[in-house]
Amino acid sequence: MTISLETPCVLIDTDILARNIATMAERVRQNGVKLRPHAKTHKLPSVAQQQIDAGAVGITVAKVSEAEVMAAHGIPNIFIAYPLVTASKIERAIRISEQIELIVGVDSLAGAQLMEQTAAKHGHTLQVRLEIDTGLRRTGVPYEEAAALAAEIAGMPHLRLTGIYTFRGALLAGKPTLDVAAAGLEEGQLMVQLADRLKAAGIAIADVSVGSTPTALYAAAVEGVTEVRPGTYVYQDRMQAQLGVCELDDCAGSVLVTVVSRPSADLAIVDGGSKTFATDVQPGTNPLQLRGFGHIHGLEDALLVRMTEEHGMVELGPLAQAADLKVGDQLRIIPNHICSTINLHNHVVMQRGDTFERVPVLARGMLE
Amino acid sequence: MTISLETPCVLIDTDILARNIATMAERVRQNGVKLRPHAKTHKLPSVAQQQIDAGAVGITVAKVSEAEVMAAHGIPNIFIAYPLVTASKIERAIRISEQIELIVGVDSLAGAQLMEQTAAKHGHTLQVRLEIDTGLRRTGVPYEEAAALAAEIAGMPHLRLTGIYTFRGALLAGKPTLDVAAAGLEEGQLMVQLADRLKAAGIAIADVSVGSTPTALYAAAVEGVTEVRPGTYVYQDRMQAQLGVCELDDCAGSVLVTVVSRPSADLAIVDGGSKTFATDVQPGTNPLQLRGFGHIHGLEDALLVRMTEEHGMVELGPLAQAADLKVGDQLRIIPNHICSTINLHNHVVMQRGDTFERVPVLARGMLE
Repeated sequence: MTISLETPCVLIDTDILARNIATMAERVRQNGVKLRPHAKTHKLPSVAQQQIDAGAVGITVAKVSEAEVMAAHGIPNIFIAYPLVTASKIERAIRISEQIELIVGVDSLAGAQLMEQTAAKHGHTLQVRLEIDTGLRRTGVPYEEAAALAAEIAGMPHLRLTGIYTFRGALLAGKPTLDVAAAGLEEGQLMVQLADRLKAAGIAIADVSVGSTPTALYAAAVEGVTEVRPGTYVYQDRMQAQLGVCELDDCAGSVLVTVVSRPSADLAIVDGGSKTFATDVQPGTNPLQLRGFGHIHGLEDALLVRMTEEHGMVELGPLAQAADLKVGDQLRIIPNHICSTINLHNHVVMQRGDTFERVPVLARGMLE
Repeated sequence: MTISLETPCVLIDTDILARNIATMAERVRQNGVKLRPHAKTHKLPSVAQQQIDAGAVGITVAKVSEAEVMAAHGIPNIFIAYPLVTASKIERAIRISEQIELIVGVDSLAGAQLMEQTAAKHGHTLQVRLEIDTGLRRTGVPYEEAAALAAEIAGMPHLRLTGIYTFRGALLAGKPTLDVAAAGLEEGQLMVQLADRLKAAGIAIADVSVGSTPTALYAAAVEGVTEVRPGTYVYQDRMQAQLGVCELDDCAGSVLVTVVSRPSADLAIVDGGSKTFATDVQPGTNPLQLRGFGHIHGLEDALLVRMTEEHGMVELGPLAQAADLKVGDQLRIIPNHICSTINLHNHVVMQRGDTFERVPVLARGMLE
C-alpha cells in the first residue's frame, strides 16, 4: 500500500503511542514511584501532556530552551536535568520558574555558586537536584565527592536542594551491557545508598531520581528510589528491542521512505540517508551488534547497510529480491535510535488508522 | 575570551566564507568549466546568492522542498540532483520550473516515464540530466546501461535531456581513498568517455557535471567536463582537512560550546552531543582515521571522544589539562562533517569581526 504522504517522513502510530504511555505509567505506579518522562524523544508538548494525563508528575528536559517551549505550551512541572552554568541560562530558568514548577540540575560547586548568586540577585529561590555520576563518566559529581558537594549546596540560601539524580542507561560496572535488570538494580542501589548517607548527614533529600528506558522498572523496584525518567519508551526503537526492553511491534515511530532507484537486483536506494536516520547508534558496535541502520518492515533479509546524506542503500537478500521492489514503492523503517532520528525532522505524522496529521516537533533543535 | 552567545551554536566566520567562495570560483573558472555548488552544506539562500555573485551558474540541491525554499528566496537557477519518482514531487518541480530555470535528475526508465507522463499532463517540458553511477553504488544508472537509458529518455517529448551527472566523492576504483587527485581524474574521465559515446550515438549532451569538494578541481581539469558541483568547500570541515583539500584555518564553520562540568582532571563535559555534532563521519574509520568527533581549537591534545545526545565528553591530555578549563569556559570545535552538523541547527551565527548575526537555516529539515 502506498500512503499519500511526501517522504521521507516520521510516522507515529498513535495507538501504540497510547499503549506505551499507559503501560509505563501503570508499571511505574505498581512500583510505588513517580514517573517523570524525558521529553527528549518526542519534543512535543502534546505528547508530554498525554504522559501527564496518564499519571506522570511532570516531564524532564535537557535544555532551558526546551523547558521554555514546554512551559509556553502548558506543561506545568519540568525538571531540566542538566547543569546550568551561565548567568543567562540561569536567568532564563528563573523566569520559567516564576510561571511553573521547575527543578534544575547542578553538578559542581562553581555551577552552584553562580546559580546561588544569580538567584540571590533576582530575589529568587531555585529548586535544584544534584547530579551524580554513577559510572557513565559524563556530567554528575563523582560519586565519592557527592556528599561534600551536597552539604555545600544545602547551605546556599537561594538554592533549595530537594533531590539527587543520575543517568546511566544500560551500563553495568562501567561497561555497556545487555543485562538491563542488573544494570537497573545497581543504579538504584548506588543512588539509595548515597541518599541514605546524605540523610544521615542531615541533608534532607526527598527525591531519588534514576532510570533510562531500559533500566527504569528495575531501578524503580529498589526501595528508596522515588522517581524514574525514561524517555525512549514513548515511541520505542530498534535499540530497545535489541536490549529486550520491547518488541519491534511496540515501536510507535518509523520512517516512511520511497524507493528512488533500483540500480541492481540486490540494491534499492531510498530517499532517506543520514539527514533522515540518526547515525549515533552505529551498526556492529557492542553490545547491541545491530545490523544496519534500521529494521525494514516486511522485508526480512533487507538491510539498510549504508547511508549518505540523502540516500539510504538497502541491500536485498533473496527473500527481499523476490518482493520485486519497484521505483516509487514505499518502505517503513524503524530506526536504531528514535530520539536522535526525531531530532532530524521538523514534523512527525501522527497516524490514527487511515488519517494522518502532520505535527510540528515544537521543541526540536532547541539547543541553546 | 567568552563570546556572549547562548551555546551550543554554529559560528560561521564570514571572512573565511567569502574567501572559500572566491577561491573555488576562481579555480573553477581557470579550468574553463562552470560551478554549480551544492547547497546541502549551508542550506541558506543568502549564501547561495553569494556563490552566484562570485560566478556560479546556479546551485544544486537534493530535494524539491529545498528548491522551493531557494526559488522563493530569489535563486534563479537550480539543479535538483536527485531522481524524482512520484507524481507529487514531479508536479512540484514543474511548478518551480515555471518560475525559474530548473533541471531535475533522473536515473531509471520508470522514473523517466512517470516524469514524461506528468509533464505531458501539465503541457510542460522538463529539463533533465541523467545520473550515472561511477562506482559509489547509490543512485545513478549503472555505467554500462547508461547509453541505452539515455536514448530512451532522449526520445521522450516532454523531457529535454541536456546532460549527465555523477557523484562519487573521494573514491577510487570503488574504494574510499585519500588520493583525491586520482579519484577526480578517474571520475572525470569516466564521465567524458560516456558523454563521447552518447554524442556518437546522436544524443546531444551539453552538460557533463561531476565533482565533490575533494575531487572538483581534479575532475574539472579533464577535457570535456563542463560543470562541477562541490558543496562542503563553502565552509570546509575536518574531513576535508584530513583529505588534504584544505587547512583547518580554511574552516569557516565551527561549533561554540560551553564546558558544563569538570568531573575529573582528564575530562571536560561540553553542552553539545550527537544532537549538536553530526555522527555520520565516525572516528577511526577508513581512510580518514579521524580521532574524535571534531577538532578543538587551541587545545592540542584534547579530544571529543564520546557523545550522548546533549553531552560531549572531551578527554584532556597533559597540555589541555594545563590550560585549566573551568566550568563556564567556551570551546570552539570544528566538526568532522559540517554539512550534517549544520543540518542539526535551526540557526547559524554569522560572525563579522566582533559582530554576530543569528540567521535561520531556511532550507534545513526540508526532507520531503
